[in-house]
Amino acid sequence: MTKHFYEKEKGLLIVISGPSGAGKGTICKELLKNEDNLEVSVSATTRQPREGEVEGKNYYFIDKEHFLDMIGNNDFLEYAKVYDNYYGTPKDPVLQKMEEGVDVILEIDIQGAAQVRANFPEGIYIFVVPPSINELRKRITERGTEDEEQMNKRMDCACEEIRNATKYSYIVINDKVSLAAEKVRAIITAEKCRSERLESKIEEIIGR
Amino acid sequence: MTKHFYEKEKGLLIVISGPSGAGKGTICKELLKNEDNLEVSVSATTRQPREGEVEGKNYYFIDKEHFLDMIGNNDFLEYAKVYDNYYGTPKDPVLQKMEEGVDVILEIDIQGAAQVRANFPEGIYIFVVPPSINELRKRITERGTEDEEQMNKRMDCACEEIRNATKYSYIVINDKVSLAAEKVRAIITAEKCRSERLESKIEEIIGR
Repeated sequence: MTKHFYEKEKGLLIVISGPSGAGKGTICKELLKNEDNLEVSVSATTRQPREGEVEGKNYYFIDKEHFLDMIGNNDFLEYAKVYDNYYGTPKDPVLQKMEEGVDVILEIDIQGAAQVRANFPEGIYIFVVPPSINELRKRITERGTEDEEQMNKRMDCACEEIRNATKYSYIVINDKVSLAAEKVRAIITAEKCRSERLESKIEEIIGR
Repeated sequence: MTKHFYEKEKGLLIVISGPSGAGKGTICKELLKNEDNLEVSVSATTRQPREGEVEGKNYYFIDKEHFLDMIGNNDFLEYAKVYDNYYGTPKDPVLQKMEEGVDVILEIDIQGAAQVRANFPEGIYIFVVPPSINELRKRITERGTEDEEQMNKRMDCACEEIRNATKYSYIVINDKVSLAAEKVRAIITAEKCRSERLESKIEEIIGR
């Protein structure tokens, strides 16, 4: 009976954003390790598949005409053009998963997150930040090939982006990936306890 | 450095309420098991100490004149008169603990919680409910000595009280104590990630 009830519950839309290098992707991978009821949304793109990339797993690969049609039909939660290619989050697969009771994570940049918020304010918006700008610089240095000037430009940009954090409901400071993922899990659990989501459950309890 | 920062953070006030028999007390005991940084507030009362009760642990035992003075000075977060005795939550020890960075739990009835909310809207208000009215009846039957009529009256009253649930930010359905305590822990963790609590931290990250 209880199980049946929980199966009926709609899943949540969880948007994880933040500056590049903050560790969004690593946190998402960590989250998926211990969760059956959580999926990361797959983006659509017009770019050619790279070797080893799987349709419907890495991306939905579609042609430009189809992509533009979908834009026209308001079929994306968010999209962007990067150089000559389009990237976007198709709405239908996300909403369908949520109907099935699965929580869906969107790991997207700050512009994308702003678009999703405009379409779907009832989502849960989490901003991931590095513990400090120096730590971000260190991470990008370890990873990358950027020269001093590019790096300084990038740090300025990151600071600008981090100012967006307070527009989000939650901020997760990524000092350690396992702890940051635990915080995201706690946020999901807590959000499922919010009273506005449990009104019908309260009626059910009283009615029994 | 990081440690120092967290030591400066103010603790949260967490109000756990709900109908009698929902399991507030058991959940609080479970919560305290694994937490260093969490305390349950101690009430003041004008009633005589019972054998084995310890001043400052079970209650602060104070005389009626003192209690009435404290009411006059607005020294309580909430108080009530039950038969001939007064009971209340003194404000100062709670606020002091919070200043020290300790999260403080108030386990109180619904009337008390309403008073605290009026004084302290920035608290976190959690309503504990039984999984069903039948389950509540079963728990109280196992515990108690109430006859059929008293029991029916009590169940009507519980239904009335549970309607208050949606005034709270969070609802925790207590089907299993360990799971319910885990949900309260998740709520505390999530609340500490709320962006409005981390504004100064964001300034700190950008500033470094």
